[in-house]
Amino acid sequence: MDIKAYVAAKAEEARAGARSLAKASSRQKNEALIKMASALKKQAKDLIKENAKDIAFARKKGLSKAMIDRLTLNDKRITEMSQGLTEVAGLPDPVGEILTMRQRPNGMTVGKMRVPIGVIGIIYESRPNVTADATSLCLKAGNAVILRGGSEALHSNKAIVRILRGVAKAEGLHEGAITFIDTPDREAVMEMLKLEGIIDLIIPRGGEGLIRAVTENSRIPVLKHYKGVCHVFVDRDADLKMAEDICFNAKVQRPGTCNAMETMLVDKKIARAFLPAMSARFTKAGVKMKGCPETRKLVPAAAAAQEDDFHNEYLDLMVNIKVVRDIDEAMDHIARYSSAHSDTIVTRDYAKGMRFIREVDSSAVLINASTRLNDGYQFGLGAEIGISTDKIHARGPMGLEELTCTKFIVFGSGQLRE
Amino acid sequence: MDIKAYVAAKAEEARAGARSLAKASSRQKNEALIKMASALKKQAKDLIKENAKDIAFARKKGLSKAMIDRLTLNDKRITEMSQGLTEVAGLPDPVGEILTMRQRPNGMTVGKMRVPIGVIGIIYESRPNVTADATSLCLKAGNAVILRGGSEALHSNKAIVRILRGVAKAEGLHEGAITFIDTPDREAVMEMLKLEGIIDLIIPRGGEGLIRAVTENSRIPVLKHYKGVCHVFVDRDADLKMAEDICFNAKVQRPGTCNAMETMLVDKKIARAFLPAMSARFTKAGVKMKGCPETRKLVPAAAAAQEDDFHNEYLDLMVNIKVVRDIDEAMDHIARYSSAHSDTIVTRDYAKGMRFIREVDSSAVLINASTRLNDGYQFGLGAEIGISTDKIHARGPMGLEELTCTKFIVFGSGQLRE
Repeated sequence: MDIKAYVAAKAEEARAGARSLAKASSRQKNEALIKMASALKKQAKDLIKENAKDIAFARKKGLSKAMIDRLTLNDKRITEMSQGLTEVAGLPDPVGEILTMRQRPNGMTVGKMRVPIGVIGIIYESRPNVTADATSLCLKAGNAVILRGGSEALHSNKAIVRILRGVAKAEGLHEGAITFIDTPDREAVMEMLKLEGIIDLIIPRGGEGLIRAVTENSRIPVLKHYKGVCHVFVDRDADLKMAEDICFNAKVQRPGTCNAMETMLVDKKIARAFLPAMSARFTKAGVKMKGCPETRKLVPAAAAAQEDDFHNEYLDLMVNIKVVRDIDEAMDHIARYSSAHSDTIVTRDYAKGMRFIREVDSSAVLINASTRLNDGYQFGLGAEIGISTDKIHARGPMGLEELTCTKFIVFGSGQLRE
Repeated sequence: MDIKAYVAAKAEEARAGARSLAKASSRQKNEALIKMASALKKQAKDLIKENAKDIAFARKKGLSKAMIDRLTLNDKRITEMSQGLTEVAGLPDPVGEILTMRQRPNGMTVGKMRVPIGVIGIIYESRPNVTADATSLCLKAGNAVILRGGSEALHSNKAIVRILRGVAKAEGLHEGAITFIDTPDREAVMEMLKLEGIIDLIIPRGGEGLIRAVTENSRIPVLKHYKGVCHVFVDRDADLKMAEDICFNAKVQRPGTCNAMETMLVDKKIARAFLPAMSARFTKAGVKMKGCPETRKLVPAAAAAQEDDFHNEYLDLMVNIKVVRDIDEAMDHIARYSSAHSDTIVTRDYAKGMRFIREVDSSAVLINASTRLNDGYQFGLGAEIGISTDKIHARGPMGLEELTCTKFIVFGSGQLRE
C-alpha cells in the first residue's frame, strides 16, 4: 500500500467534503447530527460487536486495565456519544455570524463574517468516543474532519465512521466531510502532517508523547496543550475554609484530568493555620504529598519534593506543597513551573486578586474557584474539542467558535482607493 | 561566531523584554513611542549617514534602481516613519480589554482578557522603515520584537534600532523589548525559526520566496500571505461605469501591491458592451492585457492568456481578462486561481452579491469596491503589520488586536467542580 498516495487521496476527499459543508445550511447540518445520534443508538449492538474485536486484541497485547476501560464501548457510553451529537445540534451555528460591522468614512461598510476553517485533522488515541465528538463539532462549524484514531480502536472507529458517513450521505452532505484514515501505519500520520494547504488545522488529542510528536513534525498549524501543571495559591488573606475546599476539589475530584491541581502554594503567614487540616483531609482521601522543607515541618507525612517534581503532571492522587513568602514568590513559581493551563489564587484581598488575574499568563486564571472549572461546558461554550495552551488562534477551552475563522466583507457603492 | 548560541541569547533577551512590556502601562508605552518618534527625527542626519553606507554597498553589488529606492532613507521618509510611531501611540491599547464577561449558573463570572502574545519575530527584506513600523505595533500590543532585516539594510536597521532601544531604556522599558539580530548570516534565520516556546509568532514581510522559506522551516506559528492574485468579477447586472472605475483603480492605482487586481472576469452577457471601452482605458494607461479567446475577439490588443498566467501575480501594469458564462463560472475560477487575498464582484443584483459574499473564501470579499481597499487603514484598524491569507488566528489585514491573544479569567466565590 502506498501510504503517501492513500493519505493524499483521503485529504482531497476531505477537501471536497469541506467545500460541500461550507455551503450547507444550519438546518441541514443539525438534521444530519440528530439522525447520526439516533443511528448510533440504533446500531449499538453492531458497535459493541466491533468494539469487542478491539478489546480482544488489546487483551492479547496485554494493555492495562485503564487503557482497556478507555477503549470500551457499552450501551451507556453509546448513549452518551449519541446525546453529545444531539447537544451539538442544539448549539447556535457559528458560521455566517457577522461581527463588528462598521461604516467607513468613504461610505463603504466593512464587517467580519465567521466562516469555516476548511479541513481539520484530528489525531487521537484510544477512546473511540472522540470519533463522534470531534466529528460533530467540526461538522457543525462547517468543517470537514479527517480522523486518525489509535490503532487499538480501529474496528470501533471504523464502525462509528461508517454509521456517521451513511447518515451524511443520506442527508445530502458529501461523505468526504467525515474522512477516516483506515490504516494503523504510523507513516500515515507523518504524511497527514505534510499536507499544508489541504489540511488547514491539526488538533491532537491524547498524551504528551503523541502531542509532541505531532507538533514537531507538522507543517500545518496545531492547536494543543502538552500537559496541565496547575497551581492553587492560598494567599495569607484567603478564607481558609474556602481554600481547603478549592484545593481539595482541584486535586481529588478527578485527579486524572489536565486541569487538576499538581502544586499547592501556601503563603507562609497562614501555613501553620492551614496546612495541618488540609493535609489531614488529603491523607484521608488517599492523596500522597511531597513538600518543601517548610511544608515538611508542618506536615510530617509529606515526602521531600525535588526540583523535578514541580514540573510533573501526576494525573494521580499526588500533590506538591510549597510554602512561599508572598504573592510575588507564588507568581514567580507559577511563571517558572506552570504549564500555563489553569492557575488559581484564593484570597479575600482585592488588589492581590486583580494582580494575579493580570500578571499570571495562563489559559485560565481564576480567583476563588477550582482549577477543575477550566472546561468548555463550565465556561459556557456549550461543547469543547480540547483545551489549548497555545497563544495563536485559540487559548483555553475550544468550542465551536474556535473551529471557525473570519473573513472581511465589504459592502460598497463604487469605492476606490485614492 | 556561534550563530546558534548568539540567536538563542538574543531570543532570551527578547523574552525578558516581553515580561517587562507585559506589565507596562499604556501611558508608559505611549510615551516611549512618542519619544521614539521625536528621536528618529532629531537623529535624521545620522540615519541618513548610516543609510548611505547601505546604498553605496547596494550600488557596488549592482542592485536594481527599484531596490535601491526601497532601501533609501531621506528626510521625508524619516518624517513618515516618525509620524507612524506617533499614530500608533494614539491608538487604543488592546491589552487588558475584557471581552464577553458572563455569569455562569454556579455564580462564577467568566470573561476573556486580551493579553500580549509574547515575543514576535519579524523577518523582512530591504525596506528599513519596517524596523520602526513593526516595532511600534508589537510594542504597543505589549510584545517584544525580535527583528531580522535584510542584509542590504543592515547599517540603516542598526541605526534605527539603536535609537529606539535608547529611548526604551530611558523610559524604563527593558531593552530586550526591541531585539535585533545583528548578522547577515542566513543561518541566523534558521535558528530563529527553531525557537518554539521562546519566540511565539513569526511574521515574514517580503517577497514570496522569503515567505515560503520561512514557512517551510518554521516550528513557530507563522502569519503570512504568499501573494495576491486578486479578481474583479463584472457581473451582467453591473453598473458598467462603476465596474470600469473599480477595475481601473484595482489595476492601475498601485500595481505593485498585493491587493491590486491581476485578473478581470467579465460576464459574457455584457462583454461586448464593457470590454472595448475598458480595454481602451487600460491601453491608454499603459496596461498590457492577456485574454481568453472570447476576450481577444473583442480586444484585439490582448495577447493570448495561458493557463499559468491566471496563477500569476504580475505586480505590474499587466492584466488577465477572461469572459465567463455566469457568476458560477466566475466563482469556480476564483476558487481555483485566487490566492484568497481580495476578490470583488461588481453587480446591482442583491442575490448575486450576497452569494458572492457568502461563497467566496478570501481574506476580503467585496461588493462594488476596489480590491485595493483591503488594507488595515482603509478597514479602520488604525495600522497594519501585514495581511494574512491564513485561516488560523488572523485573516486579512492585521492590526493591534491581531498581535494579542486572550486568556480566560474567572471571578469566583468558592466555586467547585461537581
